[in-house]
Amino acid sequence: MLSATPRTQINKGPHKAVQSQDALHRIIDESMVAHIGLIQEHGPVVIPMLAWRVDEHIYIHGANNSRLMRHFKQGNPACLTFTLFDGWVLARSAFHHGAHYRSAVVYGNFTAVDSEAEKDRLLNHFIEQIAPGRTADIRLSDPKELAATMVLAMPLTEASVKISNKGVNDDESDLSHPVWAGVMPYRTVVGPLQPAPDLAPGIETPDYSAAYAKHWKDGCRDV
Amino acid sequence: MLSATPRTQINKGPHKAVQSQDALHRIIDESMVAHIGLIQEHGPVVIPMLAWRVDEHIYIHGANNSRLMRHFKQGNPACLTFTLFDGWVLARSAFHHGAHYRSAVVYGNFTAVDSEAEKDRLLNHFIEQIAPGRTADIRLSDPKELAATMVLAMPLTEASVKISNKGVNDDESDLSHPVWAGVMPYRTVVGPLQPAPDLAPGIETPDYSAAYAKHWKDGCRDV
Repeated sequence: MLSATPRTQINKGPHKAVQSQDALHRIIDESMVAHIGLIQEHGPVVIPMLAWRVDEHIYIHGANNSRLMRHFKQGNPACLTFTLFDGWVLARSAFHHGAHYRSAVVYGNFTAVDSEAEKDRLLNHFIEQIAPGRTADIRLSDPKELAATMVLAMPLTEASVKISNKGVNDDESDLSHPVWAGVMPYRTVVGPLQPAPDLAPGIETPDYSAAYAKHWKDGCRDV
Repeated sequence: MLSATPRTQINKGPHKAVQSQDALHRIIDESMVAHIGLIQEHGPVVIPMLAWRVDEHIYIHGANNSRLMRHFKQGNPACLTFTLFDGWVLARSAFHHGAHYRSAVVYGNFTAVDSEAEKDRLLNHFIEQIAPGRTADIRLSDPKELAATMVLAMPLTEASVKISNKGVNDDESDLSHPVWAGVMPYRTVVGPLQPAPDLAPGIETPDYSAAYAKHWKDGCRDV
């Protein structure tokens, strides 16, 4: 259960607030893209980053010389927001148009993962989430590559989740207005895999659909 | 052309920087979800918001009593980031795995749109971007609804765009490694439209595909 703290208390649309840790995990695992905020002298900055979850931590990685990574390695407060856009709500009134979405706002402080073996394990875990079984086939990172890579960890202890999926909510007085109303759904289609132009002949195309089929039940395999 | 300012100068992966205003417009128009950053006493906060473009301005809207909207109405510096995730790059080495994406980071200050007629025009323009022709059929906003809605405008004068779409970039020494390499593309499928449970019989389902067909050439109609 996610407990509301002063900064995770949802004031706008509290009916959309979700307290389930499982819902939080699903949004992070399906998105894997976080928008991370930081403060610079001129004001706020929002940067998209890859982020993945292992158990109750989220991880980001980058080059050792990245200013962004160094900023968070120093323990500056971080906010990572994951958003999945699920479609448009087309109401009978202009006023009640809106969106279906799932979002998670995570607060915390990063700490560096120091062990090279642990960095290797976490980075390979990330690849396995995208392409199950792949780390058995690829050329794994060597010590030089691992040394050049910074991995930062943040515990999933403070977060707020909002889910909007209730469809049209028109005023009673508009229900008789003669216009189509409903939802225009958005969904993600993954694949088909596109081989690299220089892929050697005879190498079989793998099937990684298990990684995304779990998120997207129908219509989300190759079409 | 987007000119680099101190805060839009791209240091990491400068080869991914794009200076085209048209590319900026396309990312905003295709996404319409912005992650907006603000500074609170405990640190940065990143909130997903709907945002749309009309000519050389972007707009957000919300309730008049929204703390977030009031924060930006006061002219506090804003950063809005739009990101489209296009797929995973599956390299032969763990180290060179990555993502295909398009992102735009926009900086500026919002000002309130005061004219009710202009708010109405901008909000209807937003609906028309999602569902062309729809504002001719829906019940348009009344003065009370417009008065309860805040619309904020920001000129598109300072932004940086990054596009990663170059596929696999393995080290020469890994090209002979016997593993599949390529891209796992992600794309968005819109529709089919889902009617509201209480939709009156005999109301025809509209065709709004013109709105998204322009973004997504193939495979992005109903499947």
